[in-house]
Amino acid sequence: MSPFTGSAPRTSRWQHLRLDIDQGVATVTLARPAKLNALTFGAYADLRDLLAELSRERAVRALVLGGEGRGFCSGGDVDEIIGATLALDTARLLDFNRMTGQVVRALRECPFPVVAALHGVAAGAGAVLALAADFRIADPTTRFSFLFTRVGLSGGDMGAAYLLPRVVGLGHATRLLMLGEPVHAAEAERIGLLSELTEEGAAGERAAALARRLADGPALALAQTKALLTAELDMPLAAAVELDAATQALLMNGEDYAEFHAAFTEKRAPKWRGC
Amino acid sequence: MSPFTGSAPRTSRWQHLRLDIDQGVATVTLARPAKLNALTFGAYADLRDLLAELSRERAVRALVLGGEGRGFCSGGDVDEIIGATLALDTARLLDFNRMTGQVVRALRECPFPVVAALHGVAAGAGAVLALAADFRIADPTTRFSFLFTRVGLSGGDMGAAYLLPRVVGLGHATRLLMLGEPVHAAEAERIGLLSELTEEGAAGERAAALARRLADGPALALAQTKALLTAELDMPLAAAVELDAATQALLMNGEDYAEFHAAFTEKRAPKWRGC
Amino acid sequence: MSPFTGSAPRTSRWQHLRLDIDQGVATVTLARPAKLNALTFGAYADLRDLLAELSRERAVRALVLGGEGRGFCSGGDVDEIIGATLALDTARLLDFNRMTGQVVRALRECPFPVVAALHGVAAGAGAVLALAADFRIADPTTRFSFLFTRVGLSGGDMGAAYLLPRVVGLGHATRLLMLGEPVHAAEAERIGLLSELTEEGAAGERAAALARRLADGPALALAQTKALLTAELDMPLAAAVELDAATQALLMNGEDYAEFHAAFTEKRAPKWRGC
Repeated sequence: MSPFTGSAPRTSRWQHLRLDIDQGVATVTLARPAKLNALTFGAYADLRDLLAELSRERAVRALVLGGEGRGFCSGGDVDEIIGATLALDTARLLDFNRMTGQVVRALRECPFPVVAALHGVAAGAGAVLALAADFRIADPTTRFSFLFTRVGLSGGDMGAAYLLPRVVGLGHATRLLMLGEPVHAAEAERIGLLSELTEEGAAGERAAALARRLADGPALALAQTKALLTAELDMPLAAAVELDAATQALLMNGEDYAEFHAAFTEKRAPKWRGC
Repeated sequence: MSPFTGSAPRTSRWQHLRLDIDQGVATVTLARPAKLNALTFGAYADLRDLLAELSRERAVRALVLGGEGRGFCSGGDVDEIIGATLALDTARLLDFNRMTGQVVRALRECPFPVVAALHGVAAGAGAVLALAADFRIADPTTRFSFLFTRVGLSGGDMGAAYLLPRVVGLGHATRLLMLGEPVHAAEAERIGLLSELTEEGAAGERAAALARRLADGPALALAQTKALLTAELDMPLAAAVELDAATQALLMNGEDYAEFHAAFTEKRAPKWRGC
Repeated sequence: MSPFTGSAPRTSRWQHLRLDIDQGVATVTLARPAKLNALTFGAYADLRDLLAELSRERAVRALVLGGEGRGFCSGGDVDEIIGATLALDTARLLDFNRMTGQVVRALRECPFPVVAALHGVAAGAGAVLALAADFRIADPTTRFSFLFTRVGLSGGDMGAAYLLPRVVGLGHATRLLMLGEPVHAAEAERIGLLSELTEEGAAGERAAALARRLADGPALALAQTKALLTAELDMPLAAAVELDAATQALLMNGEDYAEFHAAFTEKRAPKWRGC
């Protein structure tokens, strides 16, 4: 738990998603299965605010993002997002698109690893939420569709044109974002879009196990690893090497590093404290 | 067609390449088959000027780049480029190399997708032209050779040291640019250099079909997707997310987005207008 | 040999590694086989200083980096590095981590290609040394482990969070750096981490052959290829294209380019001079 909390209260109830927290692992479930977990204005806002709250409190050390029912997330709801945005003025359109982008930034910048548990459809904004996670654990029913151009929009939505080339290379990213065709699990694995391909129906369980392992690990070291991976995509080599040096010097002053050495010497497993 | 045309006339005849325009699809053919479409000063200049003209006019919504005869393009002509540059002074050497680089920038920055139709040899500058395209559709006879070091030059020619690591990763890019060895179609597909591997002899036809599909699609959305993919390679995450937000807000005010929703509601295919 | 040498003498004996130079090929061997070539403060300092010396003198045109005994390098020694750093003050911790980062920068910025000859373990700093090479030639016994988080440190050590995503993509890089699990040769090849997978026991020989070939090639062209690959990871497209143009204009004024044309015309192999 962060020592730096102010007046802002914790949200007592999230209306547009389900949240469970168990010993440092937050499980966020998109829970609108009748609509394939299609996103609404409220769901985006809740994701944005929840990630900000969890990042501030620091009680969470790993997060699983999954979807209830037949698939992960079918993207923005055709009526409640696409239809509704047709009635918005320009300032509100910008507000909406900044909000969705803020969710992606929060996923990349939150101080804990995010594990997407994927099955069935991960389409549109659903595909980008998965893309913004640190790990994508998918079962064979998973299919990504970056289908923005299919609705007359840019494939570069919520940072997809930034992130996807850095995950699968510019060639595959261009094809996926321009054409919006389904990418099935086998192809996703082949091009580097998956962290792990599981047996059918096992993605949730494997994602939970990975999140548990991460939450029980050296939390500050893992948080810094994520922070450096995110930051160094945007830094030149010399600056990245300097950031690494400062970060390791910081962590070498920490308790977990000393604990590793003590445990190694005593031939026992380390007890990580996350600091 | 762009409403912003000035005094500059359209070029009536391109001497160093063949151009066909059919309902928004430009097909540019390197047509010097007796020399495996080896490039000359004139061919580079025509590519530079043609891409500038097409970008200005906006009558074209997709472009196919192919080569006539036994291969795509064998690169700079040994006599007409290599021999001739040996006689150039330093200022003219810089002019020449800036011109070739300008062709690559034009391919990356033109407001329509470029589909390279590949077969046989794609060597030297020919390999880089293919690399700068948005899609590389190749048949099994295709072999790339980034053979610049073989002639005593830098593998970083026309942006290859920028583009290739972003397509296939730094490890493969280093090997390809340093050694200049042939990369056959199967390896090219494996490392992410191909968008599609076709049956033998089918690359031109498949490239034409893709270009037709793109030209008949939501042209502004596709042009912006390409622009964001190009720009966001050079932008930090926060700026990319902001650019995406502004771009989607722009397109959500456009006609194609409303048309998608109307077509979806009426259960019919959208009629894209490209605006 | 560089014409620009000053008062600084050549180091006559490297205590913490073995160095052989043979007609432009330097072979650097980590030679502490009883400890799986675990690195010490002295070994890092020698690598930093040796690379600076070789870069200054320019007598070397290619470098092989290998390890004696059962593996390539097991990383920082548990006692001589991890134990010892526990006793260092903050300024010295920063000095240490800057030194290790300087070795990686030197590997990326030295004016000759570096070929890592890999077998057995390449763990921790050993994995990053391999990652910073231009070529990774590995036999099937090779296993990489970016095991920094396993000792309570950041996976972003010595530039790994900068380099690894640019070699294997952000998804694989996140998994490797966060989890620190072994990456065996077959997976390493699949994700783009290897330049060549050899028969068992053949990595050293193949690396030596490649270094010989590179050293006998057009040395300035190869050095510039490396320099551009390194620099253009950190440059926007337009600047990269301009750098390429200036570099090629420079090399087109050089002797090797003219020699290629003469040799081609006379139907003989070029005799490269490296200038």
